[in-house]
Formats: sequence, structure tokens, C-alpha cells
Amino acid sequence: MTGTINYIENTKQKTLDELAEFLAIKSISTNPDYNDNVHECAKYVANKLTSIGMHETTIYETKKHPIVYSRYEVSDTKPTILIYGHYDVQPPEPLELWESDPFKASIRGEYLYARGVSDDKGQVFCHIKAIEAYLETEKTLPVNIIMIIEGEEEIGSPNLAQFLEEHKASLKADVAIISDTPMIHKNQPALCFSLRGMVYAEITVTGPNKDLHSGQYGGVVQNPIQALCRVIAQLKDEDDKVMIPEFYDSVLSLSSKEKEYLDDVDIDQQTYLSELGLTAFAKESAVNIAQQLWVEPTLDCNGIVGGYIEKGAKTIIPSKASTKVSMRLVANQDPNVIADQFKAYVKSVTPKGVSIDIDIHSLAHPARMAIDTIYIKAASAAYKATFGVVPKFVGEGGTIPVVADFKQILGIDTVMMGFNCPDDCIHSPNERLLIENFFKGIQTSATFLSLLGQS
Amino acid sequence: MTGTINYIENTKQKTLDELAEFLAIKSISTNPDYNDNVHECAKYVANKLTSIGMHETTIYETKKHPIVYSRYEVSDTKPTILIYGHYDVQPPEPLELWESDPFKASIRGEYLYARGVSDDKGQVFCHIKAIEAYLETEKTLPVNIIMIIEGEEEIGSPNLAQFLEEHKASLKADVAIISDTPMIHKNQPALCFSLRGMVYAEITVTGPNKDLHSGQYGGVVQNPIQALCRVIAQLKDEDDKVMIPEFYDSVLSLSSKEKEYLDDVDIDQQTYLSELGLTAFAKESAVNIAQQLWVEPTLDCNGIVGGYIEKGAKTIIPSKASTKVSMRLVANQDPNVIADQFKAYVKSVTPKGVSIDIDIHSLAHPARMAIDTIYIKAASAAYKATFGVVPKFVGEGGTIPVVADFKQILGIDTVMMGFNCPDDCIHSPNERLLIENFFKGIQTSATFLSLLGQS
Repeated sequence: MTGTINYIENTKQKTLDELAEFLAIKSISTNPDYNDNVHECAKYVANKLTSIGMHETTIYETKKHPIVYSRYEVSDTKPTILIYGHYDVQPPEPLELWESDPFKASIRGEYLYARGVSDDKGQVFCHIKAIEAYLETEKTLPVNIIMIIEGEEEIGSPNLAQFLEEHKASLKADVAIISDTPMIHKNQPALCFSLRGMVYAEITVTGPNKDLHSGQYGGVVQNPIQALCRVIAQLKDEDDKVMIPEFYDSVLSLSSKEKEYLDDVDIDQQTYLSELGLTAFAKESAVNIAQQLWVEPTLDCNGIVGGYIEKGAKTIIPSKASTKVSMRLVANQDPNVIADQFKAYVKSVTPKGVSIDIDIHSLAHPARMAIDTIYIKAASAAYKATFGVVPKFVGEGGTIPVVADFKQILGIDTVMMGFNCPDDCIHSPNERLLIENFFKGIQTSATFLSLLGQS
Repeated sequence: MTGTINYIENTKQKTLDELAEFLAIKSISTNPDYNDNVHECAKYVANKLTSIGMHETTIYETKKHPIVYSRYEVSDTKPTILIYGHYDVQPPEPLELWESDPFKASIRGEYLYARGVSDDKGQVFCHIKAIEAYLETEKTLPVNIIMIIEGEEEIGSPNLAQFLEEHKASLKADVAIISDTPMIHKNQPALCFSLRGMVYAEITVTGPNKDLHSGQYGGVVQNPIQALCRVIAQLKDEDDKVMIPEFYDSVLSLSSKEKEYLDDVDIDQQTYLSELGLTAFAKESAVNIAQQLWVEPTLDCNGIVGGYIEKGAKTIIPSKASTKVSMRLVANQDPNVIADQFKAYVKSVTPKGVSIDIDIHSLAHPARMAIDTIYIKAASAAYKATFGVVPKFVGEGGTIPVVADFKQILGIDTVMMGFNCPDDCIHSPNERLLIENFFKGIQTSATFLSLLGQS
């Protein structure tokens, strides 16, 4: 193990150079204009896995973006660890707010900046580099490894569940591991026990069959922007509660152990607000940030557009207006049921004089994890060995749909051990990763695999 | 007069060719990218007026777009007619809905299609060509003429009032004439007695200081899109009434004569709806289209934007969201007072957790006109001579700010005699003008001037 850790230490510049190559590929999965780049990125990952010495690596095409599958077989007596990650990234817009090119890795201070450096290319690289270090120094791995690195995580993994179903046999594993959740802060690692699910919908309101002069028609016809705003204003009440009837009915209440974890989390509300440039929370009543983000569902508009949005003034009643809405779900909300409730409710609150169309982009189940397993214990020990502190148990407000799929389809739990921080601006301009923790991530991954090999 | 009418008849192709040159200039006043085109268009108008034989033509620069001033002096004993029009146009977007290039005049069926052909280049050309025909055939004009053709009408004429103040002496006239209001339909001309004013505002809501991941922050911070929608939803009630307190307080009630005009207007509600592809009006209670459009104030959102608006899904809570709002005012609402009421009300209904900024783009006074003057009678007779029917008295839902300015600064009434139709798609894709009525417009203008010369 000492040799492996030394190898990681001695190849830092090479590792950063290779990560920069990975980050330079514009693998933006949501925008069809970047399809070729996404495919190029899959090839890059597959070549990398082959070159570090994985036994077998295959690119599986899907209806949209490819999945990279790779395995390394040691022995039937050793556990099999399934490492999951994604090589696709969020769009970089708004570009004008980036201080450096989002697709050219840039070091400023202690950080590496680029789109995807935290979410999730940098963290995928932690595991690739841990395996490389092991194979270079020990000539074998301590456990059997399966890797699935997909290209559709940022669009809700629409083809992954089917892939898991179709390849169940070659995906037989004891546990999954994902590094796509943040630490508490740069010196305090975390293990995630709860993930939110998702319903992503788009609402389009159509009024008149063309844009109209707001003078010659204003006061008679329903304005689609105002009709849409009326709908949106009825999605949440003044205390920030979702107003869809029965929305909260199936929400799983917290165990006393889980309540303890939440109470153990120390988030200073004033610091939290001031870092975001805010003076108040959305909720009128008492705020519990950890609880609201991790184990309570919510609803957000991610975008809205209608009518004239260029500079200056144009006096029209537009024909259409639309919004994108994401609902974050918690155990045991079923995204299919919530999508139906959402559609029925939105239709019921649509004003007359316009028509409405609701399109569901993606669904993802929430997840709540068992925490007393040998895998969680090994992860905890690996963090302690590398960072010097025991990780805290936390929830995650985001969605990693594959975790519910691993449980449902492959019957395995997932260990979520991330290496980035909450202020690393994932999905925002100037996404970054602390360089020190990137290397600690490689070391933690190698230690984790080593500990599991001894168990 | 017969020679003049014959000249108009015999030069139709030349007239259409010249109009196409005028329409080809992209004089989009609201977008600074087109500043050069707007200036080029002013030069085109000035050259045209010089070439037809106007005595004196000057381009006056303003803080933004130039005003073309021109005059022709006959005799102190003849009335002086001030012809006003505008050479600027609305932006052509959305471009994909145009069936032909918006800046390349295209004849399809009985119509000429191009941005500005109705609003207002085609109608400005009616007067220019009437004067040309007169001067070519009679070698003089029947009345003194002043023309003001401006380039800022579509952005609320921000520099015109100051120009009128500064040039009062050289603008001394007996009446103004404007062709920028529609007929009832292609066989029924109209004279407009009422114009709506305007307050055009832009609201920007700011939440967090950057776009946030909707999973990692959703459920805690106020979403600027939803906060803005909550504000917009409180601008109008379910019966489509503006909810700003005191908004309706100064609205002038109708005289019995004006009520008669409104009752004389025959708009079929089902036809009106079906032509717009609608099944219901915005108002829940009884609908009176003419009254609601002409003599009642209203409020419309002209555009809204915030967050991710490209294809696909992006899961963010955006930092900002904004909307453009136009309020159409009626006599005797004061746009300055309404703007203040709007700002105070919007601030009062803004949810906590976001900040709000309100920018007023432009203000325009409404106008209600006297209708028993010699000028109105001459206009009515000119229409009758050309179209074969007496014009109806109507209101106009749009805003021509200069009408209130003419009254206030120059002390003169305005005759509003237009030649386009309500279905000519002004401000929309595929703006058009009936070619026959374009030529009848030239003839009506020539006849009107002739009749005033005899009075």
C-alpha cells in the first residue's frame, strides 16, 4: 500500500495533465449540438481504462449517449465493487461569468477550475487513478472491479436502467460506489445516506395563434405569460410548501438515528445566506437547512421564457410562454405518481383563454440508505486514514437516479463518498475542485479498495 | 384634381418600387445594433422629400435617432397642415414565422408583405406620394405643409417632445394629421377619436448571487422565477382587472356621443376569437371588445426570461428573472402617476428573499379628441370620395404619444386617418398592407389636402 500511495504522490503533474485532457472535451449531454463531443468523451474514458490495465473495456451505445463498461477480475473469493460515475457535464452558460474558459482547466490559488472538474469528471478520475496506482505498483487489484461511466447523468440517465436490466449478469457486484456528492467542507468528509429523486417537467402555455400588438389586443385576450405566471404562483404557498394536493402524503418520516445525523450537522444560517448574497430564506416559518435540503421534497422553476427578451421595448402579447420545472422528491415518493399529480393540478389551475401542454422530461426515484454495512465502515476508515477525521453522515439534495436503480435492479446498496465541496459551483460558472482533495480522493479510493480486499 | 388622381393611377409601379427601397432599410429603433440603419433611413426620407419638391428639408439629430423635418409654403391665407409619421419599425422576430424576408417587400395575392409596410412606412408614403402627385400635376400645393417623420415611435418617442418645444416657431400649424391607425376592415375607413397612453416598465428580480444547483439549494432559497411570477400573478385579478390600487381612479367616463360610436361598432366576438385561435376571452364577466380596447386601461407582460431557456433540461435556481410590462392608459390617466403607483405596488407584493429593480423605459399620455372640426369633416369627405363610404368614429388601443404632445405643446388637434387593417399583423410576423388601399390612401390624402385648400 505504501508503494501505491507513493506512486500517487510522485505522478501528480502527469495526473493533472491527463485530467485537463478529459475536462477539455465538451461532453454537454443535454444539447444535441454536442453529441459528437459526448461520443468522443466516451472513447477517451474507454481508452484511459484500457491503458491503465483493466481486463476488459466496452463502449455500449444507447439511444442517446454511450455507457463505458470496464472490469478487472481478481478472484471469486474477493468482493466485487461496482464503481459508477459520469463523464457528461452541464452546459457552461452563462459564459460571460466564467473567469477562464470552462473547457480549459485553469489553476488559480489552490483550485482547479473547469466545467465538470467536480461534477463528475474529477471524481471519476480519482478512481481511475487509484486503480492505475494499484496496478502500477502491486500488479493486481485487492478486489474485483466493475466500472460503469455513463454520459447521460445530467439529463436524468434515461437509458441506464435498461442497460442495467440487460446486463444484470455481467454487473453482479457486492456494493456500488459513487463519488458525486460533496463533503461538508474541505477538511470534513461525509458519507451520504439519503438522495432526492426528481420529476423534470416543461409547461407550455399557448394563447393567440401569433404574437399580437399589445395595444390593439391588450385588455381582451388572455396573455400567455400572465396565465403561466398565475399557474406558477399556485405551485408553492407563501411558506414555500408545494401546493399540489397529496404531494407530501407518501413522504417517509425520519428515524431517530437519522434525526441525530441531521442535528449533528452544523450549518450557520447567516453564513449560508451571506455567501449567496441573500438576506432571507424562502420559508416564513422556522428553517432547518439540512432537513429541507436532504429529506424534504421541493419544486423549482429552472427556466422561463416568453415574448420579447432582447434589449429595449417591444409591445406584444406573445403567442406562447413556457417554463421548466424540477421537483426534488424524497423517500418514499414515487416519481410516476408525483408526475401525474403535477399534471392534474397544473391543468386544474390554468386560467381560461389559453391552452396548456405538459411534457415530462425525466423521472428519478429518491433513495434512503442502510448505514451499518462493512462497506460503509471501510469507506469511513479510508477517509479517516487520508483526511485524519471520521466522515459525518449526511443527505444530498440532488439526484443520482442510478442509486435507486442499483438497489432495485441489481439488489445492491451504494456507498456515496465524494471529494468536492458545497462551494465548488457545480452547475454554475467557475466550477472548481480543491487540488489537494482531488489527490486525497485518489488516495482514499485506493485505501478503500485495499481495506475491502482484507475483509 | 383629376390630373393628380390620374398621375397616382399612372405611376403605380414606380411607387411600389420606391416603397420597396424604403422597406428594405432595417430601421429597427429599439436595438442599438441597427443604429446605422435607422440613420440611413432618415437620409432616405429626407432625399425623397427633397426630390419631390418640398421647399426645405432638414435632418435634426437627437440623443438617439434623427427627426426628418420638411416644409412647403404656399400662402399665409391657406391653412397649415402638419403631417406626422415614423420611419422606424418593430424588430422582425420571431424570424422563422415569416413567409418571406421581412426586409424584402413581397407581393402575395392582393397584399404587400414587409416589416413596416403598415406600421408606418407604407402610410408615410401615402402622404409623400400625394404631395408628389400634386406638385407634378398642379406645380403647387393647395395648403401649407409641414412634415415631421421621426425614428423613435416604436420606442416611445423619447426625444420628440423636446424637439416640438425647441421648434415651436417653425411648427406653427392649424391641425396635425397622422396615418398610423387602422380602418375597421378593408372597405370601411375609420377616424380615430381616442388613443391609449403607455407606461413601459421592466422588472428584474434578483435572488442568489449566482445560478445554483436546484438539488443542492432547492427548498431553502427563494427562486427568483417563482418570486417574479408571484408578483406578476398579483398584477391582474381573475376578471382581468388591474390590481394596482387607485389605477382606475382618474379614468374619464364616456360621453353619450362616445357611447353611441362604441355601440355603432360591430365586432363579432366568435369571429374575433376564432381568427386568433382562441376559445375564450381573458375577462370572466361580460365582454365589450371596442370598449375594452379603446377606452379602458390594461396591463400586459410583453416578455419574460430567467434561468435555462435552451433545449433540454438544466437543474438550476437562477440568480435573476425579469419581465417587460406595458400598461395602456386612457384619458385622463397620467403616466407619471401610474408609473409611481406601479413601482410602489410591485415593491409591496415582492416576496422576501429576493431584491427587485424596476426600470421605466417610456411614458406616453393618452388622448381623447374633439370630433366636430372642419378638418374631421374634410377627412370624412375625402374618405367618402375615395372609398365610397363615410368613415366610422373609432378608438385605438395602441399608443401614439405625439398626439398628446401636439395638443399640449403646439395647441393643435390631430386627425387620425389610417389606411391599414386590424389583421395586417403589425408588430407580428408577415406584416402586410392591401395594395389597393395603399393607393386609395394616396388618393385620400391628395383629396383631403385639396378640400382643405378650398375651405
